[in-house]
Amino acid sequence: MIIRVGIVGYGNIGKGVEKAVAAASDMELVAVFTRRDPDSLKISSSVPVYSVEHAEKMTDDIDVMVLCGGSATDLAEQGPYFAAMFNIVDSYDTHAKIPEYMATIDAATKNTTAVISSGWDPGLFSMMRLLSESVLPDGKGYTFWGRGVSQGHSDAVRRVDGVKGAVQYTIPIDSAIDAVRSGRRPEFTPRDKHMRECYVVAESGADKKRIEETIQAMPNYFAEYETIINFVENNVLINEHAKMPHGGIVMHSGRTCERDHNEHVIEFSLKLDSNPEFTGSVMVSYARAAFRMAAEGQFGAKTVFDVPLVYLSERDRSTLIKELL
Amino acid sequence: MIIRVGIVGYGNIGKGVEKAVAAASDMELVAVFTRRDPDSLKISSSVPVYSVEHAEKMTDDIDVMVLCGGSATDLAEQGPYFAAMFNIVDSYDTHAKIPEYMATIDAATKNTTAVISSGWDPGLFSMMRLLSESVLPDGKGYTFWGRGVSQGHSDAVRRVDGVKGAVQYTIPIDSAIDAVRSGRRPEFTPRDKHMRECYVVAESGADKKRIEETIQAMPNYFAEYETIINFVENNVLINEHAKMPHGGIVMHSGRTCERDHNEHVIEFSLKLDSNPEFTGSVMVSYARAAFRMAAEGQFGAKTVFDVPLVYLSERDRSTLIKELL
Repeated sequence: MIIRVGIVGYGNIGKGVEKAVAAASDMELVAVFTRRDPDSLKISSSVPVYSVEHAEKMTDDIDVMVLCGGSATDLAEQGPYFAAMFNIVDSYDTHAKIPEYMATIDAATKNTTAVISSGWDPGLFSMMRLLSESVLPDGKGYTFWGRGVSQGHSDAVRRVDGVKGAVQYTIPIDSAIDAVRSGRRPEFTPRDKHMRECYVVAESGADKKRIEETIQAMPNYFAEYETIINFVENNVLINEHAKMPHGGIVMHSGRTCERDHNEHVIEFSLKLDSNPEFTGSVMVSYARAAFRMAAEGQFGAKTVFDVPLVYLSERDRSTLIKELL
Repeated sequence: MIIRVGIVGYGNIGKGVEKAVAAASDMELVAVFTRRDPDSLKISSSVPVYSVEHAEKMTDDIDVMVLCGGSATDLAEQGPYFAAMFNIVDSYDTHAKIPEYMATIDAATKNTTAVISSGWDPGLFSMMRLLSESVLPDGKGYTFWGRGVSQGHSDAVRRVDGVKGAVQYTIPIDSAIDAVRSGRRPEFTPRDKHMRECYVVAESGADKKRIEETIQAMPNYFAEYETIINFVENNVLINEHAKMPHGGIVMHSGRTCERDHNEHVIEFSLKLDSNPEFTGSVMVSYARAAFRMAAEGQFGAKTVFDVPLVYLSERDRSTLIKELL
């Protein structure tokens, strides 16, 4: 049984999903949907490109829609719209608004299944936080991000007057990671855990000193961190900083016996060459799960916390138990 | 609602489960069951100790039985016996026989829920293998164990003529771990991945050279590995090697785009001061899950692959979504 997949939104994540669907032997891509002019969109696969509105004519042709739009604007609108007609997966990542978004999706999914906020954070990292604190309740968890490109921070730098282009890397601080590994359950300020490094192309004649100070003083983005600014030529930015690597570590240290000082450390780390391709790969696994849960009548809005791992694999349960358990 | 727990078998894992139940605010220990003379058993908690046969009179008093016996002999008998009357959790770890054991438990669980083979391997490590290969199907997974005490290997050394006492450590080889991290998907022999180190107390007058050679030549246990033998005095064994540390790493490297050489590495590692206490902590989380799944009528034999993570936590779903997703 082949799972028929549609992709909504053809940005970096959409392209990652396209590759992951091509790599899955139990899936086929049916169409890509866009808010842009469909004729203007060049895609890698030989499937049709339609406008988003066309989707409602294809409810019999697509088993799962993978929503690849951004959380800020796209998903608030597209999520409930598509979830009412299709099983969906998205990577909604505005952490503070997830409960509200989830309620909206849950209301829309009468006969469909939606897995929201899949990806790696929220997503795999969230799963590790839950698993770790459940197993070691007398403990403390930590998440470190990077080394990787943060789109939000890169965008913030690009908005500074005199900046032509920029890429920002979030970098975890090794001494903080080591302190967690020691089991001492340290308390950190933002500055203790991460630093930030920016590669900036200045417009010709721009005051670099002012640009540097403006970036470093930006509240919420940079003021709370040590921030290193490297001015580079445009070709360096294009040749050396075009990839979107990312990753990080979820750590948890906890104790099971005070008298014997029995401490344990759980770590989960990701080192990703391409954040959007890995995110797309996770979403495609959860698309498989959404399809299967819907087939069993398990409708509604789900998260990675609700989906048994057995639904994620191409392989059947008895093989997984035999070979991986 | 307090979950009423019984412990069957009061060895190292049973004691670990006892501590984990005490640390859980939603659980209480009701009784410990033993095959030994109940009057001879001293336990840490102030709950009664009964013989195993007494359990059938307590089906109304206990919500989940945590089976802490060994796979080799205890569980084959106790698993189906208890699963017919109670929700159960065990740590059945004879990997090759899990499907057969699972079928036996599944047949016994008409109105009960059993989570078999919980713990960390099988258990958390199995989950990471499944999760990783699902997300990165074009990839390869690896499991390294240690540094930690292997009971099976320690027992094997103790059976050698002239050996009074022994502890064996399994040690992963760093260069192999680094090779996996490189993304090159190396192939390993057993000798490439792990080495073994034994601390041995010889009987007085025993031929140490012969003991060393006998251990190093044991097929399946030591012949396939570099094995270091350290002869020590009995007090050293007792004072420095009585703890049961363990741990390991599950790694998976995989690719999402051949053209761009986009490689990713997923790692999950455990560093445990006490293997039985951590195993007990995992089992208690799955005891909570077994209780909840049974309450929803989800009966039968389950594995860690089948249990949504949300069932493992003391905290409710909406709090988990709000705070951890």
